[in-house]
Amino acid sequence: MGASRRLLLLSTSRTSGTSYLEHASEQIDWLLPEKGTRIAFVPFAAVRFSYDDYEAMVVGGFSDHEVVSVHRFDDPVSVILDAEAIAVGGGNTFKLVHDLHHFGLMDAIRARALSGIPFVGWSAGANVSSPRLCTTNDMPIMEPASFKTLGLIRAQINPHYLDAHPEGHMGETREERILEFTIMNPQSPVIGLREGAMLKVDGPVMTLEGRTGARLFHGESDPQEIDPGSDVSFLL
Amino acid sequence: MGASRRLLLLSTSRTSGTSYLEHASEQIDWLLPEKGTRIAFVPFAAVRFSYDDYEAMVVGGFSDHEVVSVHRFDDPVSVILDAEAIAVGGGNTFKLVHDLHHFGLMDAIRARALSGIPFVGWSAGANVSSPRLCTTNDMPIMEPASFKTLGLIRAQINPHYLDAHPEGHMGETREERILEFTIMNPQSPVIGLREGAMLKVDGPVMTLEGRTGARLFHGESDPQEIDPGSDVSFLL
Repeated sequence: MGASRRLLLLSTSRTSGTSYLEHASEQIDWLLPEKGTRIAFVPFAAVRFSYDDYEAMVVGGFSDHEVVSVHRFDDPVSVILDAEAIAVGGGNTFKLVHDLHHFGLMDAIRARALSGIPFVGWSAGANVSSPRLCTTNDMPIMEPASFKTLGLIRAQINPHYLDAHPEGHMGETREERILEFTIMNPQSPVIGLREGAMLKVDGPVMTLEGRTGARLFHGESDPQEIDPGSDVSFLL
Repeated sequence: MGASRRLLLLSTSRTSGTSYLEHASEQIDWLLPEKGTRIAFVPFAAVRFSYDDYEAMVVGGFSDHEVVSVHRFDDPVSVILDAEAIAVGGGNTFKLVHDLHHFGLMDAIRARALSGIPFVGWSAGANVSSPRLCTTNDMPIMEPASFKTLGLIRAQINPHYLDAHPEGHMGETREERILEFTIMNPQSPVIGLREGAMLKVDGPVMTLEGRTGARLFHGESDPQEIDPGSDVSFLL
């Protein structure tokens, strides 16, 4: 299952000095080679802005295509089933996972993405392509029915991966937080995608794209640096 | 219910330049006026260090008393039922809430704390005195059976509250994260306790102690500054 999947999983929606999704335009053109592809957009990670505003922003990021936000329909599952591609936007991951379960979208999106229709997710939308919610940076503002997510890849994504320990921040570093996860879940690898990094999945091959690289955490092993362009198919 | 409760809820276990729990020594003496009080300690928030090491650290913080960590017993609930006071330590809040439900400790601790035996919690251990897990800063490394927590006070505590937006950090500020919560949960007030701040609950009266103050978030209202020494009984 999933041998024909085509996925694009972005750490972030934008990098400093680029417009919405612009830093991934080359990879979006790879994912969606036909102009006018009908994309079902999932806006449910939005909390501090409206779904309508979110849709308008995303339309700009996919200007060669037709974006339809599922929030406009009584039956969002049917929009997923009819779509030619699926896009899941960032925001609060707990809100997103809550709503994906609530509307029955988790199974529908998973089935369609594994059957080979293009899937793109950024930030929270990339996080949910992993097996579980467990490596988000977000505040748990809602309780989802389950932490189970799409499971399109085997690794857990940590979006917005940050190396620095910001001054004045008394809490754990990002690395320490992820090590808490790998201690409790030694079987689950975690890939920390720096801002601008992304994963491209073409059937059985996954590649790290972008210029900023990633950091891999797995069980008791020392964290490992992954360079841009690396084949990371072992994390599928 | 809870009219006789005596609680001490700390943002953090230590501040810069003080030893473990030292910044709260005056309030701990208020909470535990009798020397040699038998304290049941809950170490289950620990992930990156052992429960034994955690117990040793906490024994030092309560040197006038007798600390017994519940992890040493087959039946941790009975330790809570026999204790003269309860202390819940910080670490990862998801791990703590998972284990409190798993071992049946949530109801036992709640019942005893509301019946009036002294309760002290710091960081994750203060967070769980609120009705729900929802305002932790921690990574969701495990899925708890429920987000429901002790509900000893009505407000949600956000421990380690931070005003700054650390340089190089592309994510949301703490205030923005909490506003996501208040948008989704307009009926739940959130008190962000800065490092060194703490709440002292003496029956029907709650006071903000420490020198660093707190920030209050509630529904659509503008966030509000709370000065050290303020009566915050309206959050009980």
